[in-house]
Amino acid sequence: MKAFSDLSYTHHNHNTTGKNETVGKNQKIVQSPIAQAEESCRLWLELLPYASPQWAELAFHEQCFWRDFLAYTWTIKTLEGKTAIASMVASSAQRCAVGDIQITEVKHHPEGFDECWFSFSTAIGRGIGHLRLKQGLCWTLFTTLQSLHGFEEKTGKLGTRERGTNHGVIKGRLSWLEQREQALSRIGNEDQPYCLIIGGGQGGMALGARLQRLGVPHLIVDKHERPGDSWRKRYRSLCLHDPVWYDHLPYLPFPDHWPVFTPKDKMGDWLESYAKLMELAYWSNTLCRKAVFSESRKAWEVQVLHEGRPKTLRPKHLVLATGMSGVPRMPQFKGQEAFKGSLMHSSRYQGEKRWQGKACVVLGSNNSAHDIAADLWEQGAEVTMLQRSPTIVIRSESLQKHAWGRLYSEEALAAGISTEKADLMAASWPHRLMPGISREMVKTVLAEDADLYEGLKRAGFMVHMGEDDSGIHTAYMRRGSGYYIEVGASQLIIEGKIGLRSPAEIIELDEHGAVLSNGEHMPADLIVCATGYGPMNGWAESLISREVARKIGPCWGLGSDTRYDPGPWEGELRNMWKPTAQEGLWFHGGNLMQSRHFSLYLALQLKARYEGLPVNVYDA
Amino acid sequence: MKAFSDLSYTHHNHNTTGKNETVGKNQKIVQSPIAQAEESCRLWLELLPYASPQWAELAFHEQCFWRDFLAYTWTIKTLEGKTAIASMVASSAQRCAVGDIQITEVKHHPEGFDECWFSFSTAIGRGIGHLRLKQGLCWTLFTTLQSLHGFEEKTGKLGTRERGTNHGVIKGRLSWLEQREQALSRIGNEDQPYCLIIGGGQGGMALGARLQRLGVPHLIVDKHERPGDSWRKRYRSLCLHDPVWYDHLPYLPFPDHWPVFTPKDKMGDWLESYAKLMELAYWSNTLCRKAVFSESRKAWEVQVLHEGRPKTLRPKHLVLATGMSGVPRMPQFKGQEAFKGSLMHSSRYQGEKRWQGKACVVLGSNNSAHDIAADLWEQGAEVTMLQRSPTIVIRSESLQKHAWGRLYSEEALAAGISTEKADLMAASWPHRLMPGISREMVKTVLAEDADLYEGLKRAGFMVHMGEDDSGIHTAYMRRGSGYYIEVGASQLIIEGKIGLRSPAEIIELDEHGAVLSNGEHMPADLIVCATGYGPMNGWAESLISREVARKIGPCWGLGSDTRYDPGPWEGELRNMWKPTAQEGLWFHGGNLMQSRHFSLYLALQLKARYEGLPVNVYDA
Repeated sequence: MKAFSDLSYTHHNHNTTGKNETVGKNQKIVQSPIAQAEESCRLWLELLPYASPQWAELAFHEQCFWRDFLAYTWTIKTLEGKTAIASMVASSAQRCAVGDIQITEVKHHPEGFDECWFSFSTAIGRGIGHLRLKQGLCWTLFTTLQSLHGFEEKTGKLGTRERGTNHGVIKGRLSWLEQREQALSRIGNEDQPYCLIIGGGQGGMALGARLQRLGVPHLIVDKHERPGDSWRKRYRSLCLHDPVWYDHLPYLPFPDHWPVFTPKDKMGDWLESYAKLMELAYWSNTLCRKAVFSESRKAWEVQVLHEGRPKTLRPKHLVLATGMSGVPRMPQFKGQEAFKGSLMHSSRYQGEKRWQGKACVVLGSNNSAHDIAADLWEQGAEVTMLQRSPTIVIRSESLQKHAWGRLYSEEALAAGISTEKADLMAASWPHRLMPGISREMVKTVLAEDADLYEGLKRAGFMVHMGEDDSGIHTAYMRRGSGYYIEVGASQLIIEGKIGLRSPAEIIELDEHGAVLSNGEHMPADLIVCATGYGPMNGWAESLISREVARKIGPCWGLGSDTRYDPGPWEGELRNMWKPTAQEGLWFHGGNLMQSRHFSLYLALQLKARYEGLPVNVYDA
Repeated sequence: MKAFSDLSYTHHNHNTTGKNETVGKNQKIVQSPIAQAEESCRLWLELLPYASPQWAELAFHEQCFWRDFLAYTWTIKTLEGKTAIASMVASSAQRCAVGDIQITEVKHHPEGFDECWFSFSTAIGRGIGHLRLKQGLCWTLFTTLQSLHGFEEKTGKLGTRERGTNHGVIKGRLSWLEQREQALSRIGNEDQPYCLIIGGGQGGMALGARLQRLGVPHLIVDKHERPGDSWRKRYRSLCLHDPVWYDHLPYLPFPDHWPVFTPKDKMGDWLESYAKLMELAYWSNTLCRKAVFSESRKAWEVQVLHEGRPKTLRPKHLVLATGMSGVPRMPQFKGQEAFKGSLMHSSRYQGEKRWQGKACVVLGSNNSAHDIAADLWEQGAEVTMLQRSPTIVIRSESLQKHAWGRLYSEEALAAGISTEKADLMAASWPHRLMPGISREMVKTVLAEDADLYEGLKRAGFMVHMGEDDSGIHTAYMRRGSGYYIEVGASQLIIEGKIGLRSPAEIIELDEHGAVLSNGEHMPADLIVCATGYGPMNGWAESLISREVARKIGPCWGLGSDTRYDPGPWEGELRNMWKPTAQEGLWFHGGNLMQSRHFSLYLALQLKARYEGLPVNVYDA
């Protein structure tokens, strides 16, 4: 608190609980830790509206982070250290009048910090924030924009639900169906979408749903025949690896009886219904061929093939929601034209039953490689996995127990942690602190699941927990791969039911199989290359141009200076859900949680531009 | 309380609140009204497990009701008066060991009664009950079975959610899609449904969903091409007349942004998704031709035409869920073969635009007649309504404000009244008491909406509030029709935009129009007969036999001895959701609230029989 003693200020009393109101400045009474925590947070937040570089120097801890989703910066950014924070504050002071701060929840942590949730208002919208204090100084601050003044979504809870029909009788009015059919027939023809979303998986749909609710004209285009096919067309045994509590889409949560791990075809059906029920503008059977941004018109010209017919779309904004992975990375092998068996990328593997009794080789050792190897074994094939480099392995149950269960589980719901709250809680930690938190979790898991890790080592499998032992979460953020969530295949490897060569590469192919790096000839009827995907901005290169792809730079990754994630440190996923170096171009993707949570911020950015609100992006 | 003083009993203390525990038998302290209410309810309920005819005599008020949904009677029944209650208790004493009674909520009503909600357990399942006490004696008791021991539905909240996949690797296992496709291809062929549901609207689907969750093999057959068509194929301007809070289906509630009054095509889309997402066994394009019950096999033989191909189904139980209305009632007019215009029943009216500038006559003055007249006017037709008898009219807003809003609204939800709770609250009143309650509501509405009622009278419209002034609710229960929920058409009548003849009948038709009972000749290009539907057991007559239809007797109606609802008094809807005089034959229908709530009890009855549990129906 002493840090504030130099500052004089006048302010409203934002303490809504009524506690401590009678405690004057010079009184000293013994407060409970939680009351002290509330008092500290209240005092700290009372100065937030008067943020200045001087204030930043005084109010923040030596190690400090300010993560902001749009509220101050109109981008997704983490500022680290007082200097960075002071710079942002100096630049933002004019644009962001924060007020109406209300503390909604306070916690005291005996290990040495207090935290609180608060709501606030800016000139442009309403937000939710989170604060962690150490000795009264800010350790982490998290500010998010949640809605735009005057453009709040209509909901039941707010009492602003739409009527569905206007009672009364109106000459010549159109029914809901007629209106919807008219809108769908005009979009892409008489009417241009303000925002074109390429890719109609969970990412594109979640964003489309938010834009629809916000009244931003959108169109989703997808190459498959039916919404949901991006899941249906994967290998037959695929189920979501994340549990149901983590996977809800916006607005239409899975019902209470939904299975924990959704089978892929059930997911496909859900998405197909979602597109319909959320009234998305969705074109199936549509290939995107070329997109060019016109500087003069400030709009895109996008060539598509819609059900075989060429069309030109002219959106103001283009969102690539084709998945966090880029184009499948298919190796070329010497002699592969001589190979008589089947050779395919994992993305093409569907799991037909014809491999029973056949010799199958899976190149790679991440999630897809393990799932496909197990699927082949279930069908009676002889499977061998070729591991090229060490892999992070963690049991699905352990991941849920030690990582997500606290936020995404039945227990979390019972404790009042809604899905939306869980998303914010997870995001309240800056990426810089995550490896440290994750390493603690990794230690626990390594001890608890020692049988698994010892078994894998005995089988010759190269298992590790990442370059800095920070496990799956940071691997996911840094490179989006490099791990397997164990649901049975590791056990098959331990038991020798799935054969293993490690380390092993394919040197060349011949008529009957593969020659490995150890000189062994491995006969094969099928070789599946679970060799991953190219970078996400590969989509930009193939759809727009190499120049634009270069200008944008890499997508995903934090700049952690680890393998596949070169520095410098960015502190947020590169180019995801925020303005890029190419005007009007956005990237959206990731798992279901990210598709749900970050589609909100992307939609708000698009809505603000659609409505012509002042949007000053802080791009220092 | 004095009524209990003669009885000696030993019991566990069911008071979970911990209040009053130190109050001994002979102590007298001043209690708050709510504490007194809780004490009264607790004392009363402590004897419920020891129910006997003698107890009934002592524990009930002179005017008393016991409404039971399965828990005691394995049917849906209201017992009125001590004698009826004593008889039931005498007969049920052996079969129903009630225990584990827990009071969950207590209220004191200063107008002279206390009420509480409680949970309980029987030998066969768990239930929810409700009690109203006057001076410590029971005025109304309501007992419901909610689940069967050992057959509880798997849910997230109970921590029994299904996994979706069994982690681990199992040779030759089928994926979710393969299992589902196999089950769907077998049902009606290798596998017979235990329960066949005829009619795939909201009623059939709600029941199908509950049976699916309970693991009872079912099949829904429906004549339309697509699930949801029963709504899509109605007139173009139709929206649900009940608001969204009243309309949820089980398991998959409408999302928070859903409009208040769902347009019919949006409802159709919702139902189509519902069938898919709830994994219903659903045959579209299927006509039912004949059903015969085999006494020897205790099963039905049902002839259907499934996508044009004849099939025989052999379910143990047959549910007619073809709507609470029977076959359309189409009058025959003298001279109708000469009429050059279009003549149709309201069920066939779809609202094509071709009636602009044409002379249109709507015969009838209930909901459909008004909606169709307004729809024609909106399209620019010249419309005249022929009113044959007085009609109950109430503004939609007033219905919501004074009738349903307390239970089904955003405000009710905010007050903690979930949809399921609202259903039970509504059902806690015996039908006998409803006219009295409704009459009070009617008085308020007549005063508030005097402009509407005066305007209608001035326009010559015969408006009333039912034979006993008890309004729309009782009319709905007695005959399922006779009313219009005003959403604009009454205003058009008042303003003369919809013409009116009242009272008026069509005497005969000629080439150009209709001759009315007042001798007037009314030219017409279109005559829509909104003349209602035949009785529900008409379905049984046409599908099974006249003998079975006669054995069953009328469906729907309470036996109120009013027009279209002959006595004797039944106290519950006749034949609905409960055993009928024909073994293995059930009726299901009604509005969305009834489809939702009563599908639970019908599903539990079917599940109990499917599992071979002891089911003793009290049929006194």
